[in-house]
Amino acid sequence: MERIFNARDVAIIGVSDRPGNLGRDILRNLMDWGYEGGVYGVNPKGGEALGFPLYKSVSDLPKAVDLAVLIIPAPAVPGVAEECGRKGITRLAIPAGGFEEFGEEGRRIRDELVSVASKYGIRFVGPNCFTVINAHTGLCLPFVPVSTDIPRGGVSIIAQSGGVGLSFLTMLRDENAGFSKFVSMGNKTDLDEVDYLEYMGSDPQTEVICMYLEDVGRGRELLEKARAANKPILAYKANVEPLTTQSARSHTAALANNDEVLDGAFRQAGIIRVRRLKQLAEYAKVFSLPPLSGNRVALVSPTGGMLVLSSDQCARRGFEFPPLSPPLVEDINDHLRAGVVNVSNPVDLGDVHDADSRVYIINRLLEQDYIDGVIAVFTAKLTSDGEVTTGGIYGTRKNILPELGEVMRRRGKPLFLCLVSASEVLAAARRGVDYPVFADPEGTVDAAAMLRDYSMRTRGQKPCVEGR
Amino acid sequence: MERIFNARDVAIIGVSDRPGNLGRDILRNLMDWGYEGGVYGVNPKGGEALGFPLYKSVSDLPKAVDLAVLIIPAPAVPGVAEECGRKGITRLAIPAGGFEEFGEEGRRIRDELVSVASKYGIRFVGPNCFTVINAHTGLCLPFVPVSTDIPRGGVSIIAQSGGVGLSFLTMLRDENAGFSKFVSMGNKTDLDEVDYLEYMGSDPQTEVICMYLEDVGRGRELLEKARAANKPILAYKANVEPLTTQSARSHTAALANNDEVLDGAFRQAGIIRVRRLKQLAEYAKVFSLPPLSGNRVALVSPTGGMLVLSSDQCARRGFEFPPLSPPLVEDINDHLRAGVVNVSNPVDLGDVHDADSRVYIINRLLEQDYIDGVIAVFTAKLTSDGEVTTGGIYGTRKNILPELGEVMRRRGKPLFLCLVSASEVLAAARRGVDYPVFADPEGTVDAAAMLRDYSMRTRGQKPCVEGR
Repeated sequence: MERIFNARDVAIIGVSDRPGNLGRDILRNLMDWGYEGGVYGVNPKGGEALGFPLYKSVSDLPKAVDLAVLIIPAPAVPGVAEECGRKGITRLAIPAGGFEEFGEEGRRIRDELVSVASKYGIRFVGPNCFTVINAHTGLCLPFVPVSTDIPRGGVSIIAQSGGVGLSFLTMLRDENAGFSKFVSMGNKTDLDEVDYLEYMGSDPQTEVICMYLEDVGRGRELLEKARAANKPILAYKANVEPLTTQSARSHTAALANNDEVLDGAFRQAGIIRVRRLKQLAEYAKVFSLPPLSGNRVALVSPTGGMLVLSSDQCARRGFEFPPLSPPLVEDINDHLRAGVVNVSNPVDLGDVHDADSRVYIINRLLEQDYIDGVIAVFTAKLTSDGEVTTGGIYGTRKNILPELGEVMRRRGKPLFLCLVSASEVLAAARRGVDYPVFADPEGTVDAAAMLRDYSMRTRGQKPCVEGR
Repeated sequence: MERIFNARDVAIIGVSDRPGNLGRDILRNLMDWGYEGGVYGVNPKGGEALGFPLYKSVSDLPKAVDLAVLIIPAPAVPGVAEECGRKGITRLAIPAGGFEEFGEEGRRIRDELVSVASKYGIRFVGPNCFTVINAHTGLCLPFVPVSTDIPRGGVSIIAQSGGVGLSFLTMLRDENAGFSKFVSMGNKTDLDEVDYLEYMGSDPQTEVICMYLEDVGRGRELLEKARAANKPILAYKANVEPLTTQSARSHTAALANNDEVLDGAFRQAGIIRVRRLKQLAEYAKVFSLPPLSGNRVALVSPTGGMLVLSSDQCARRGFEFPPLSPPLVEDINDHLRAGVVNVSNPVDLGDVHDADSRVYIINRLLEQDYIDGVIAVFTAKLTSDGEVTTGGIYGTRKNILPELGEVMRRRGKPLFLCLVSASEVLAAARRGVDYPVFADPEGTVDAAAMLRDYSMRTRGQKPCVEGR
């Protein structure tokens, strides 16, 4: 696996300089992503592509590269794999479709490929997929342009569908969540989710693993690798409804057809199952927060209605609001403007328009040993100079988000910050800080419950409320 | 009500030119929103505010205006209401807090206000709220700045919490959904959700009604008005969980405390209940689509994985995928690039990179009498000149959204278009068309199910699957 994801050099077989050539898009991705390893192109016609000279055959290559990408039609794949094997290239990435998912002839080609691979000890990604990306080295091998404006970080992706996987990258970018490694598995003819999970599990750059699965072939081994990974694993398992399983063209089944069994197995292995594609990205970033070691939260908002609907959701998720200690209440009262609010938990900040006081109160709440974390729901706007402010009233016109991040780090407890705001305000807020900023109050509470269950599980405690 | 929401002239009582004066923010809102009715300011000290001359008392006003806004502290409200009554002003908007929600003294003030109101036949909005907005006349009375960059249209809002109500405006703006009227009800001392619902129900400019409720005082009448409205009504009812009802400070209960009873009652009255704040805005716009008169949909995407996970959600929501007629399959096949896809429903457009062909195929699908609507999931990007394209591959680089809108209108059937994309792409897409553009595949299917249930109910058919 190391030779795939951390390939020191890569050959693109089937690349040409013709616009529309898919290998050319791969070459472009490597350049855009700043890949510093060796790059070799192969095309029977020779010539060059984007300035790279092209070798006429695999055997002409000056060395046995770590990884070869075969961007050629399916029928040509087994033959080129054979050449690679003879050259000593034993790791392949195969994007082409037209294998077993496409009938009898495709199955024949697959069998031939498998037989070549076994002869030379070749392991391969795909076929029928977007293969791999390593954001840290710039190894970016999909044959469609992949935008580079996503921060590097610790979230890795194992996706059965390449399209879903790349969309997930877009979502990570929207969340300003850092991305590490990506694999689109396709037909999983050789390497499958178990292999990738094992690798990501021991990869030091990977902090959170996100999976999109349509079928699970080796269920027991998957669960073992998940347990061994000892990292947060989020999984979206699709292809579960009768109508879908019937209409989906290829699936190896096994765990696939009994969704409840899968659900229980995932839970036992500590895999967090998500039911909405967007949650994969939203939740991935939650693990950058300090752990939420219990049920006891303070809920904070300057909007009474937000407190009401958020505490509904807190109740559904099993959170408790411990009463605030009298000295703390007194302290908070000193920060109220007109003193017309009776301070309790949930904490109505409607009377606190001073930005520094808002930070101070959240800090004091996180400091209490009877409070495990804070959930805060603000509305946000942009000032004329593009600063994010939590409120439209005089005194709130200061971006308190960086300070809130410091408070959280200092206290070692999570703040789940929700900004109910226009999308461009949310985007600006997320760009400015390295912790998650949530967009809707109910989803914020859901994310808090998810982190609580994970945090408690990793300490050997039983989760309070099973996620829905 | 007409004199409130369509007030031809309005007096702001308590306005001054001092920065921070809340009446001044109201005046500013009226100017920003282009209110063309008469505006009169009252302040005992006289002078002027933002160029408007100020009368020293209500009795000095040149006429009995349709509506007076009392932006003064609670204890002063009954006395000024008395002055209004004597002047013949019988419609008031009262933002101030400090009434029954704030203890014994507040209750006394409330009783006094109620007694004055009854003496003069005064009806009033509030207290403890942001009062009203009419987007069409520019009557914008909240005492915080309200952004004007939201399109005018048919969505009206009845909100118990002013903060939640204004946040909902932001969400409508994000959806590019047209806004008509807004009321923040506050304590509902006089006018309540039943009164507002009755008015919005018969208001010709209101096409969809969105409600945020924390308690429901006159349940039976509310349900009657809902039925009589004969318009889509979306309702978010908060304050339903034991923890919340306990911590919420004021609620008159009645229907409030038995959420299941409320659920059933809402359903019988045709009120669509939403469970996430964001769904209020997302769903409000769905009613601008043609009705979805049945269960039979075509699902379309160029991404196989999106087809799989979307058809899961379709199955959960009770949709069916009728097989396509042989002539249609043949026709679609003619538009495939390499002919390597077996066309069925769900329709894999992965091989169709030509933008016009994509529009053509969706048009042909909507045309079939055995298909009630189309759900399409694309990824989207912006070209360098800011056009929205559904795909990153050559040939897809054309904004097909306007044409899809025309197709939908021509066929009189809905297209539920989901663009899985970065938020700024989604924003650009929404600005460009007047139909809803959804952000995630599962939510798109949910919205389709919601419209189907509503469409079938209004034809006297039983909904297929009750919403979750």
